[in-house]
Amino acid sequence: METTPQDKIAASDTFQSVQWMGDKLVIIDQTKLPQKEVYLELRTAGQVFEAIKKLRVRGAPAIGIVAAYGFCLGMKNGVENDIVKFTERCQSVADYLNSSRPTAVNLSWSLKQLMNMVETHKARDIVQLKKDLLEKAIKIHDEDRELCKAIGEYGTELFEDDTRVLTHCNTGGLATGQFGTALSCITHAHAARKVKKVWVDETRPLLQGARLTTWELQKAGVPHSLIVDSAAGFLISRGEVDLIIVGADRITKNGDTANKIGTYSLSVLAKEHNIPFYVAAPYSTIDMELENGGQIEIELRDEAEVTGFNQQASSPEGTEAFNPAFDITPHQNITAFITEKGILYPDFKESFSELFRD
Amino acid sequence: METTPQDKIAASDTFQSVQWMGDKLVIIDQTKLPQKEVYLELRTAGQVFEAIKKLRVRGAPAIGIVAAYGFCLGMKNGVENDIVKFTERCQSVADYLNSSRPTAVNLSWSLKQLMNMVETHKARDIVQLKKDLLEKAIKIHDEDRELCKAIGEYGTELFEDDTRVLTHCNTGGLATGQFGTALSCITHAHAARKVKKVWVDETRPLLQGARLTTWELQKAGVPHSLIVDSAAGFLISRGEVDLIIVGADRITKNGDTANKIGTYSLSVLAKEHNIPFYVAAPYSTIDMELENGGQIEIELRDEAEVTGFNQQASSPEGTEAFNPAFDITPHQNITAFITEKGILYPDFKESFSELFRD
Repeated sequence: METTPQDKIAASDTFQSVQWMGDKLVIIDQTKLPQKEVYLELRTAGQVFEAIKKLRVRGAPAIGIVAAYGFCLGMKNGVENDIVKFTERCQSVADYLNSSRPTAVNLSWSLKQLMNMVETHKARDIVQLKKDLLEKAIKIHDEDRELCKAIGEYGTELFEDDTRVLTHCNTGGLATGQFGTALSCITHAHAARKVKKVWVDETRPLLQGARLTTWELQKAGVPHSLIVDSAAGFLISRGEVDLIIVGADRITKNGDTANKIGTYSLSVLAKEHNIPFYVAAPYSTIDMELENGGQIEIELRDEAEVTGFNQQASSPEGTEAFNPAFDITPHQNITAFITEKGILYPDFKESFSELFRD
Repeated sequence: METTPQDKIAASDTFQSVQWMGDKLVIIDQTKLPQKEVYLELRTAGQVFEAIKKLRVRGAPAIGIVAAYGFCLGMKNGVENDIVKFTERCQSVADYLNSSRPTAVNLSWSLKQLMNMVETHKARDIVQLKKDLLEKAIKIHDEDRELCKAIGEYGTELFEDDTRVLTHCNTGGLATGQFGTALSCITHAHAARKVKKVWVDETRPLLQGARLTTWELQKAGVPHSLIVDSAAGFLISRGEVDLIIVGADRITKNGDTANKIGTYSLSVLAKEHNIPFYVAAPYSTIDMELENGGQIEIELRDEAEVTGFNQQASSPEGTEAFNPAFDITPHQNITAFITEKGILYPDFKESFSELFRD
């Protein structure tokens, strides 16, 4: 029997970062990757808090999903018959989980979804409310999977046969409900037999490319080679890269895009060599409150991430480092955005407005 | 008393990678940097061989200098009265040292200089010949120091007040007889009170920037910050870099330049943002046998340098990596070359020819 692209995607989907098992949550411990594939069973809000805080689960969408399930786990065994007391405890569990990491937007977003439900359901009985909350958590998870799949399917259209694609950081199933964003395009295009090779930037300082993207591509059976970030220019100049595809942390009204440090340099190299530069991200990443990239605040992270490597100091004691986590790629350098609602070409201001009008 | 720029250079010159002490060679053990500053005394050709092979001394010019002294140490205690036998032993010591590393051009070049002397001095007595050989080794060392100093002085002319300069890899005193090439320009410009800040690329995979350039700049008291290689674009785009200066491994007739991987990307970013991009290198780096960069063979190094660091794996077992040690910067992206004979502007083909006609 011939395998269809759908079969291949199913076969390549050999792991799930987050699984709800009816009474417990099972996650891959990302701190143990790539050396060991360890699955953790989480049965309490406290265990979920610890998993987020210790980066056992990372990637903004994945954190949002896990927090929603963690909320349900936290509320599961309560005995309140009083909806007011129940609501108070909900709020304290939400606040607790929300404090596990300071900057992940999806974390507070998904907890807020559940709290809204609690507040608007005050009239109904608590047993039913608990069921509805769990259903909502599952829906948040399902919707993320669906949108990642849609992004992958739209992205596949941009690949020709035997495409050699370069990517940066980790934008795969580990960081989302399933499939990922930029990496979803790559695995879907591979299932459609369009990918010859993936060049994986190691992505200093935290090596998400070297540690996680290689691991996912190995699982999915997609041919790939790891490179140091600064070798991308060499490969592009030698004609070894047909297109670049990356994720996004935040996109402004005009298309300027914040993403992992190093993305901007790739966009300049793509322009210099006239190859397409795509950004794959869910529609929700577009922040219509911000006019342009100049308004995005860049998070500066711990200098020790740069002065060392894998907890091993590499530079002299007292060395000062500058460690921006993100950079801004101006909209002029972006060929198109790949969202779950389709592929958006310039003028982005117009195509975004249309999207938000619908 | 006011300190002159010369005083400041002297003060900043707080280490020497290689020192001849009359009867022994003293080198810094670069494998111990930056954690420990360990000086090794080498008294035999065997010890010099080991130091080169184990990368205790690295940087092509430094290796050439050390090999020349190693040759003299190897011949010092011989008792031959027969010039033919002496010559034979010279050849075997030279061959031995030459086998310590396969690719360092300066290694074979400096040993050849000494062997030429042996062969043309056959008529004279062996005691005098030994003295002449040591004098030649000292001359090789002195000349390297002189040319690095000249490069630094010419380079200083290119700095304005409060310059923020970005550099890549290690091109300092550690890699040469003293001062270095690109780093010599920076320390000389700092002595002339022209440097506000140095941005140091960590330079994956071997982290020569993080390990060695920071160490040298700390010694010299030059303000600096370490960054991951892919953060250079962010800094340049924010207007935080006034000029870029790098070294070179080989320069072809038309100005195309092979240098540490990542140099090419920097040159594209410099062009995009209209900031000067300088290459500092001795005249001897220009290879008039090669027409253009397309003819330079790029050394591919061990994949393990990319899949891990310091014997610690960062990616999954079986991950394939691509590890070019160098890339090619086309002459169009280079503002000027800084050599010991002056600053050379385009058309480089013409300015190089003139240099070689003299």
